[in-house]
Amino acid sequence: MNPFVAGYVNRDRLWQRHLLLARHGATASGGVNRQALSAEEVAARRELIAWGGAAGLSAYTDAAGNFFLRLEGRDPEAAPLLSGSHIDSQPNGGKFDGVYGVLAALEAVQAILDGGHVPKRAIEVVAWMNEEGSRFAPGMMGSAAYAGARTLAEILSVRDSADISVAQSLAEMVNAFPNVPQRSLGRPIAAYVEAHIEQGPVLEKHGFSVGVVTGIHGKRTFRVTVTGEDAHAGTAIASERKDALLAATAMIQALSASMHYCDDMVKFTVGRLEIKPNAPSVVAGHALFSIDLRHPIEARLRELGDRVAGLCRENAGPCTVDVVELVTAWPLEFPPAMQAEVRDAAKRLGLRSMDLPSAAGHDARYLHGICPSAMIFVPCKAGISHNEAESATPEDLYDGARVLAETLFTLAER
Amino acid sequence: MNPFVAGYVNRDRLWQRHLLLARHGATASGGVNRQALSAEEVAARRELIAWGGAAGLSAYTDAAGNFFLRLEGRDPEAAPLLSGSHIDSQPNGGKFDGVYGVLAALEAVQAILDGGHVPKRAIEVVAWMNEEGSRFAPGMMGSAAYAGARTLAEILSVRDSADISVAQSLAEMVNAFPNVPQRSLGRPIAAYVEAHIEQGPVLEKHGFSVGVVTGIHGKRTFRVTVTGEDAHAGTAIASERKDALLAATAMIQALSASMHYCDDMVKFTVGRLEIKPNAPSVVAGHALFSIDLRHPIEARLRELGDRVAGLCRENAGPCTVDVVELVTAWPLEFPPAMQAEVRDAAKRLGLRSMDLPSAAGHDARYLHGICPSAMIFVPCKAGISHNEAESATPEDLYDGARVLAETLFTLAER
Repeated sequence: MNPFVAGYVNRDRLWQRHLLLARHGATASGGVNRQALSAEEVAARRELIAWGGAAGLSAYTDAAGNFFLRLEGRDPEAAPLLSGSHIDSQPNGGKFDGVYGVLAALEAVQAILDGGHVPKRAIEVVAWMNEEGSRFAPGMMGSAAYAGARTLAEILSVRDSADISVAQSLAEMVNAFPNVPQRSLGRPIAAYVEAHIEQGPVLEKHGFSVGVVTGIHGKRTFRVTVTGEDAHAGTAIASERKDALLAATAMIQALSASMHYCDDMVKFTVGRLEIKPNAPSVVAGHALFSIDLRHPIEARLRELGDRVAGLCRENAGPCTVDVVELVTAWPLEFPPAMQAEVRDAAKRLGLRSMDLPSAAGHDARYLHGICPSAMIFVPCKAGISHNEAESATPEDLYDGARVLAETLFTLAER
Repeated sequence: MNPFVAGYVNRDRLWQRHLLLARHGATASGGVNRQALSAEEVAARRELIAWGGAAGLSAYTDAAGNFFLRLEGRDPEAAPLLSGSHIDSQPNGGKFDGVYGVLAALEAVQAILDGGHVPKRAIEVVAWMNEEGSRFAPGMMGSAAYAGARTLAEILSVRDSADISVAQSLAEMVNAFPNVPQRSLGRPIAAYVEAHIEQGPVLEKHGFSVGVVTGIHGKRTFRVTVTGEDAHAGTAIASERKDALLAATAMIQALSASMHYCDDMVKFTVGRLEIKPNAPSVVAGHALFSIDLRHPIEARLRELGDRVAGLCRENAGPCTVDVVELVTAWPLEFPPAMQAEVRDAAKRLGLRSMDLPSAAGHDARYLHGICPSAMIFVPCKAGISHNEAESATPEDLYDGARVLAETLFTLAER
């Protein structure tokens, strides 16, 4: 154990790299739109490879398009430690969601090297493929495939709204990096630590720069398809219409009324709604919407999610409705020993930390299934995320990266 | 007056031309997607020019992109008679909406020629630009500009969802036809007759092949823009969200409940709804929807339309809402003398006709403002329109074209 590794974390380098990566997919309003496996993500990976290469790290990928920068350890037989997150973003995303976890891990590895250490275990900085799920739904694809929670065949066949498959996009990503070797999927991992902005207001409100994440709220997602009949807005009689848009809006209102306000821990969101043909003077024959439902308590999440199909059917009017559950992720708690590693590291550095759960999903959910995992949160301004206005301070990012460096070095020496 | 002009209407030619035009923008399900000023419309116009040219008609256009095929009359000083409709379609449109009015007019003119007649007045077959309004909203753009109801500057600046303006698209249309002369907009017209499928079930239900259109229901359209705030679906607390999708669906439900079922003549439609960023795990900060409201009685339409802004505001929750009225078209009645021309023509041909109003809007609405206008309806199967399943019989189309030929020849001799 070396309490001084964190002293080599470079605050300015860490901050500048956030600004540099944010150029790839930069939006006019200061945000980032960097979709999974897009040209923008290729450019961002290219930059990561350059930074990692300069520090002596080797780049790898796997069949699920996950991306690794590896620091070799002293013991070639020991399973590596992994740390990272993702670099894809929402369409109107910010500079920190996901990116922070990757850059903080890279910074931690560089701090270990700059401190003159070679850890016992290899440490790999990882960027998981398609965490956000905005281009290819659902998200956390790469980590799910790595952990065996979803099959490779299943994720490769998913298509985006332009009808391009993950398989096609992955082939383009592979072609972009002919010199990056592809390793087997799901290699053993000693432990996983993910740093991330909180995406909620708790740390900022309580004045902490570091949060020890106790677990992740549960989540169930659904795709609802409503089928009615296209008709002329001027001539079709109300009583004879099969208006899919009207049925979908009735379902959304009924779902929201049933779920949203029954306790203040429920998070119910319809974020995507597509209408066809989507023309002002045509009664819409088709509607499709997403449901994202989260709750920290498994029994409650179970009960609420089980209401979805019934409420949709009851409000379908003359239309038919098809409800498919896409993701079922029950609430989880990270191993107390792993939480303690983060808490103790912060303490050794003289940083105050607080324990809090994650209301957002993260790749750590799937890693938790295959190795001891932990998460470190840093505050983001007003809890705003999945938004171009997402913001964090260089100082908070620095504190989190120091705790990560200390935690990783400790674990890598075990 | 020559009761025998209709005898030269060619049923098979008229039917085949519907099938031929339907190739331009043909959809996989047997419908048509031919947007205003698109490459598909260029191809359709090219075919019309060829058919018109073979019959000795000259093609013209104007600054609003309207399209004319002119048969010269005996009296070069007399204002021409116009007859036609439009050839643009809804995204999932059929083979007959609009197209019938253009092809029936072309058939009527050919029947007059085939009967060996040169009418006193010139007759022009017209295809008005962008009747449907699905690419560039609102519709009936070309006829509105021709009639002076909208300025040219106003329509040229309208943009489609790909941010392409009418002005740009019109320039491409002009480039596609370097040999089609452009005439001044809004030249005097002696009278206008438009044939169209009914797009409702009345004629079919009562067993008539020809309808004399008494007038057009009133219509008011609105664009509603809802502004909230993008937020993370997993972390943003319900009470602090500004969910534009949820607010929009509440507005649509409230509007529908308030209007749709207060009498059975109301037609209330939200056909278009756009969400931003439209991602499953992001609370949507932006929503935009269209309202299409129609009623045959002016006072009722006035009262219902005046409810829109208030109902939107009352259901905006924490979001802000902006309501813009795009089209205000009060109910109209065609001149009884023009109705009688159609009724009498049918009678002379031994065809039973019935009087009925149009629940759909048509270019004749704007022509009615500048010249004596009339409309002829033919049945369509089950009243289905704005739908790929739109269907009509060769026999009904033939009957309507015969009545049109008879009416046009009568009027052209005045």
